[in-house]
Amino acid sequence: MTNRISRLFNVQYPIIQGGMIWCSGWELASAVSNAGGLGLIGAGSMYPDVLREHIQKAKKVTNKPFGVNIPLIYPDTEKLIEIIIEEGVKVVFTSAGNPKKWTKYLQDNGIKVAHVIANSKLVAKCEEAGVDAIVAEGFEAGGHNGFEETTTMTLIPKVREFTVLPVIAAGGIATGRQMLSAMVLGADGVQIGSRFVASEEASAHINFKNEVLKTQEGGTDLMFKKLIPVRLIKNEFQQKVKDAENRGATKEELTEILGKARAKLGMFEGDLVEGELEIGQVVSIINEIKPVSHIISDIVLEYKVAKEQMVHVKYEF
Amino acid sequence: MTNRISRLFNVQYPIIQGGMIWCSGWELASAVSNAGGLGLIGAGSMYPDVLREHIQKAKKVTNKPFGVNIPLIYPDTEKLIEIIIEEGVKVVFTSAGNPKKWTKYLQDNGIKVAHVIANSKLVAKCEEAGVDAIVAEGFEAGGHNGFEETTTMTLIPKVREFTVLPVIAAGGIATGRQMLSAMVLGADGVQIGSRFVASEEASAHINFKNEVLKTQEGGTDLMFKKLIPVRLIKNEFQQKVKDAENRGATKEELTEILGKARAKLGMFEGDLVEGELEIGQVVSIINEIKPVSHIISDIVLEYKVAKEQMVHVKYEF
Repeated sequence: MTNRISRLFNVQYPIIQGGMIWCSGWELASAVSNAGGLGLIGAGSMYPDVLREHIQKAKKVTNKPFGVNIPLIYPDTEKLIEIIIEEGVKVVFTSAGNPKKWTKYLQDNGIKVAHVIANSKLVAKCEEAGVDAIVAEGFEAGGHNGFEETTTMTLIPKVREFTVLPVIAAGGIATGRQMLSAMVLGADGVQIGSRFVASEEASAHINFKNEVLKTQEGGTDLMFKKLIPVRLIKNEFQQKVKDAENRGATKEELTEILGKARAKLGMFEGDLVEGELEIGQVVSIINEIKPVSHIISDIVLEYKVAKEQMVHVKYEF
Repeated sequence: MTNRISRLFNVQYPIIQGGMIWCSGWELASAVSNAGGLGLIGAGSMYPDVLREHIQKAKKVTNKPFGVNIPLIYPDTEKLIEIIIEEGVKVVFTSAGNPKKWTKYLQDNGIKVAHVIANSKLVAKCEEAGVDAIVAEGFEAGGHNGFEETTTMTLIPKVREFTVLPVIAAGGIATGRQMLSAMVLGADGVQIGSRFVASEEASAHINFKNEVLKTQEGGTDLMFKKLIPVRLIKNEFQQKVKDAENRGATKEELTEILGKARAKLGMFEGDLVEGELEIGQVVSIINEIKPVSHIISDIVLEYKVAKEQMVHVKYEF
């Protein structure tokens, strides 16, 4: 059985692993693709040569489709895209920028393009750009979130109202039940990030993975609303930012507090005190590091059980 | 057909109309109950004598069960509860306080009690108090939201994990599709607020109802995070608060800016400039004032269609 998303990307399940800086390299992406989902290499934390190496390594261990996520705010975009084309990658997810700039060029080179948005006003831009699918990401997500703070429950129906394009829901999804819930809201597939951070194959530092298991509800906060909002695990660094924001710090002060390479320090080098630890709210229900293949089979099984339960048991009235 | 919530409250549909200050008087509550849901009179904006009048008027126009919502932070709680008992109301929803204080007393007087929480840590308190049901309210809701900012998509599965009690999902729910989505996440019923503000029977000022229709995505913001968080439509008053918060205003300064009777001014007297206009994010998909009976039949129909669609068409893979 297939649906619009699985057909579009030529995968078994409409489950996309979100591209995450410092966490989703070739090992995670290829494991997800081998397990029937769509793996994405997160190019946001990679120099062009590093991205090429990751793509080549992924190709060696999977013959299934995988893709690359590119946040368009980074300076090397053009070089990254040339490498993606040269290496024959067939899927690109773009985010944090205007989808018009690269979509057609990528498609002309045989690549399917999805663009990430966090509010329904950007649907029109995606349609004008001619993207193949839209990722709609709610406030609860761990990524770069929208200023509107729209949650997945309110965002997906609104995006669905505005487009007939395939919609991929992101934010707050880690289980099969949440996946089914997003599909009911109007999504054709889901993008899952946080759940895959706590996988054996994620390139995140083990300290960060363990912190993900420990973090409870209320353990994250959306920070840097004056710059580009991002959801962080609460720690000393995040508290420093919070204090600054509470006393009304300017953009310049916040940029200075952020400094350089905070995300690498936290997520890749494992400094839980001074590092930036990006994660979604759904972290509160993640309590085990597992191989990717188990994570995906868990999600698929729970999805099927939830669906059966809905049909036969609980929801009639 | 019934489920745990419809049986508990003896109603046709597991749809609860949220108690809302200045919006949900006897007319709204009785209309919801007459249409097969559970109507709640919002006592938060009522003096004891006013509540008695509303209960008596509701009893005259419906013989279906209805309830009263009491925010436990208000000073008149004891008097309100005595009136509820004297008037023979059979359902009370409590919020913003400790459920231990009143639950048993209410139950001893033949009343079913539900308590509203915004984070799963409070599940244990609800269980200790012996409530009959838990309302779990996400960040997107219009009410007094939790400090954890947990969204409905992440909150409901977490609450479900911690309890076997009936769970009512609130926040981001205005349609049958959103209702089904919440049921898939583990809820047994839904509480809907904002959608009922834009009803003919709501006691909200017509200016406020029209503003609800106009408000788009990103048109609300969670304010007063240093006091008790509440989601407001963006207007001059809200901007004044935002500016103060951005420059790091203290609790005292914020309390002074809030002043007295802001919510009444905005929602009941229709001052869209200086008034406080409480609403949920889901306001962005509400675009018509309708009679309550139509709102409920719309929700029920869409719920059934969404369920059929999921079973037969779209979601197999």
